[in-house]
Amino acid sequence: MSESNKPSLEVCLSPALLHLYDVKNSIVVIIDVLRATSTICTALYNGAARVIPVASVEECVNIGKAIGGITAGERDGRIAEGLVHGNSPFEYPREFIENQTLVLTTTNGTKMLHMAKDAIQIVTGSFPNISAVCDYLISQGQNVILGCAAWKDRVNLEDTLFAGAVVSRISANFDINCDSAIAAEALYNTAKGDIYSFMKQASHYKRLANFGLEKDIEYCLTPDGANVLPLFKNGELIAG
Amino acid sequence: MSESNKPSLEVCLSPALLHLYDVKNSIVVIIDVLRATSTICTALYNGAARVIPVASVEECVNIGKAIGGITAGERDGRIAEGLVHGNSPFEYPREFIENQTLVLTTTNGTKMLHMAKDAIQIVTGSFPNISAVCDYLISQGQNVILGCAAWKDRVNLEDTLFAGAVVSRISANFDINCDSAIAAEALYNTAKGDIYSFMKQASHYKRLANFGLEKDIEYCLTPDGANVLPLFKNGELIAG
Repeated sequence: MSESNKPSLEVCLSPALLHLYDVKNSIVVIIDVLRATSTICTALYNGAARVIPVASVEECVNIGKAIGGITAGERDGRIAEGLVHGNSPFEYPREFIENQTLVLTTTNGTKMLHMAKDAIQIVTGSFPNISAVCDYLISQGQNVILGCAAWKDRVNLEDTLFAGAVVSRISANFDINCDSAIAAEALYNTAKGDIYSFMKQASHYKRLANFGLEKDIEYCLTPDGANVLPLFKNGELIAG
Repeated sequence: MSESNKPSLEVCLSPALLHLYDVKNSIVVIIDVLRATSTICTALYNGAARVIPVASVEECVNIGKAIGGITAGERDGRIAEGLVHGNSPFEYPREFIENQTLVLTTTNGTKMLHMAKDAIQIVTGSFPNISAVCDYLISQGQNVILGCAAWKDRVNLEDTLFAGAVVSRISANFDINCDSAIAAEALYNTAKGDIYSFMKQASHYKRLANFGLEKDIEYCLTPDGANVLPLFKNGELIAG
């Protein structure tokens, strides 16, 4: 902690920069707005027993088989071969996911999660659960790293915007000595009047819009549609 | 080049991300606003024959001795032991630097420069030579990477702001499919009304202001005070 006696709040814009941060002494929020962390909180909000994040399609298939879970994941915007569901939050309504285990493979989000495994606590964040994340971070009084999953290590707008939104909400409770946090908050302040329009410039928007997923994107950019806190414990995400 | 037939314009926010970019097919602009690239253009603008950027103090001493150059560089905000001058642009007025060789060691800027050695061309940029940089990039019609030197690989405000200023000036001539470029431009647009005040939040501002260098910072954030283009050729920066 700094001289101000407040815990620190930092933003890491890419997994390729996470080694520069003191993960071990921080709570890490994994951010993969389009769409992994939006889908995770949605499934838990709708009553999923747990979400198991895995790195590979093979692991997803094997774990799904072993525990009778719902296997999900996409590669290049389509359901991966061998899996049954995709990455869209709309695939996980209560009547489908309640009391089920979702085994989810995502490239960027899962990578970040495994890299942050020594953190005090890992949680996942995105606009649909922003209030739950902010309330939790304030309540804990620990150092925080907002970890953007990015896109193949390239900084992206949507994760940076979410990090900025969190900074703007909770900065009074933290000591901010991190230029990425200042930049993310400024970006969010520029975009917040109409985040959806702002995101139309983003490289990922173009990728997803090509698959007709505008509805997903709008949901993933809207606050508090699935306001639950996913906590990572023993390899699983459960509702906190 | 993309379908638009315009060359691409990308921003790399940290040397730790440069491997994600196609350096070989691009012009790379090395950006180290506080203060290496501001000092480099200032020395060349004031008539220095060349600037030789080196990584270590030892190399700086040895090359300086061998060629009779002026050795300069700081470590932790003070002139490094064995060197004669510091990093401030105000140390290099015409009456001192004209026709001289400046051998300059900086940690962040030099690192980025060596990493980009396979680029089509390396130039250095900062606010004091922003117009020269922009005119050059437009004239070349090549892909461009704006490479922020950052601070020990951590993203910083001042280099990101300069990248954003360049994007805002030349975007019409390029195809932009890079979220870092969009974010940098948005950041610049937020700050441009009063960049100096905005920068007071920055971590590096606090480091330098502690050494009483507000005057340096103000100069380094002001456009076109030393409007020359430093071109990297055969290990040296010369006025283009």
